[in-house]
Amino acid sequence: MDRAFIFDVFGTCVDWRNSVAREVAGVLPGVDALAFADAWRGEYQPGMERIRSGNRGYVPLDDLHLENLERVLGRFEVACDAPADLNRAWEKLDPWPDVVPGLAALRAKGLIAACSNGSVGLMARLARWGGLPWDAIVGADVAQDYKPKAAVYLRSVEVLGLPPDAVTMVAAHNDDLAAARAAGLATAFVPRPKEHGAGQTTDLTPDQEWDIVAGDFHELAERA
Amino acid sequence: MDRAFIFDVFGTCVDWRNSVAREVAGVLPGVDALAFADAWRGEYQPGMERIRSGNRGYVPLDDLHLENLERVLGRFEVACDAPADLNRAWEKLDPWPDVVPGLAALRAKGLIAACSNGSVGLMARLARWGGLPWDAIVGADVAQDYKPKAAVYLRSVEVLGLPPDAVTMVAAHNDDLAAARAAGLATAFVPRPKEHGAGQTTDLTPDQEWDIVAGDFHELAERA
Repeated sequence: MDRAFIFDVFGTCVDWRNSVAREVAGVLPGVDALAFADAWRGEYQPGMERIRSGNRGYVPLDDLHLENLERVLGRFEVACDAPADLNRAWEKLDPWPDVVPGLAALRAKGLIAACSNGSVGLMARLARWGGLPWDAIVGADVAQDYKPKAAVYLRSVEVLGLPPDAVTMVAAHNDDLAAARAAGLATAFVPRPKEHGAGQTTDLTPDQEWDIVAGDFHELAERA
Repeated sequence: MDRAFIFDVFGTCVDWRNSVAREVAGVLPGVDALAFADAWRGEYQPGMERIRSGNRGYVPLDDLHLENLERVLGRFEVACDAPADLNRAWEKLDPWPDVVPGLAALRAKGLIAACSNGSVGLMARLARWGGLPWDAIVGADVAQDYKPKAAVYLRSVEVLGLPPDAVTMVAAHNDDLAAARAAGLATAFVPRPKEHGAGQTTDLTPDQEWDIVAGDFHELAERA
């Protein structure tokens, strides 16, 4: 196992938008659940940016998700009896259909690990929910910082005991791959054109000549 | 998944002594392979102690194993063409027979994670070798320090998103459990009376009233 594939998770492996909307719809009837999911996810980057910039010490994404939920509940002017329970929507995200069989095939070619901004605990629960067969969970928690900071990629490959060029970062987001490439990792782009719904305009095509561009995880496993 | 079980690995889950001896015998014919394995493992605590005491920055156990191998090769006055290859003996340790089915049963009761002084990469490769179905790998690498320092247990439960008393440390070593208990974790003792061979005198019985004492991982899964 002298190679590894590390994966962005939200959007790349799992359909967070429809999954979160499903949980929101169950708890907050009458709310536009997809709009709520989009708004909740919209707070994601600002919450992390305060930490990436050094203006706040590291706190796990679970805590940011809960803070962001309170903010979005206020904006939607809706009350929630148990926000901590609703926050667990992020532990119940369905994988895209190609992900579980594609990961199983990729395991024959190297170690596979989540490299997400989600915490180890969140990733472990998400793996249980969707049957994701990770060998390990790396990413933000092992680096105590958030992607796309170089430290997250570098620390992730270090704890796997591999040099950066033996590790392929797999993502549906060009900015994640650009940062991984800058840190010396190999790159694989798997577009998820419906991550943000039918009208998605971003990350539909590769921005750079990534080492691999694959239509789904089946194709990724064949070409890796 | 509001509970977790975290496991010591060397000795508790895997039979390092006979497994390392098997690899040594294949590479160093004529050497007393069990004595070599014991001597190699004998350097384990001193190597970590320099780091625990703050006299050396954190380096992963893989590096300490390789340094210790060089030392033991010298003591046995034997040459090894490829010590880095032999060092991978630690990635090929056979689980005790009850471990894989016991862990599978325990997964129904909570998250299960390795909490070893081994690195994430070493633990991931060992899990592949023996079929250990970890949800996550925590331990030394996530804490950047070595058991039995409290930080290792506390950081491990933190990245799992759980309070210490929701997590049970499982080990065949009383000192590991004493440190885990001092950090607020629950404890389970599973003796491995042949870890050090037929003449073992240590850790044959519980030193304290651990929360669970079980004969093997099957019994642990029933009583957890």
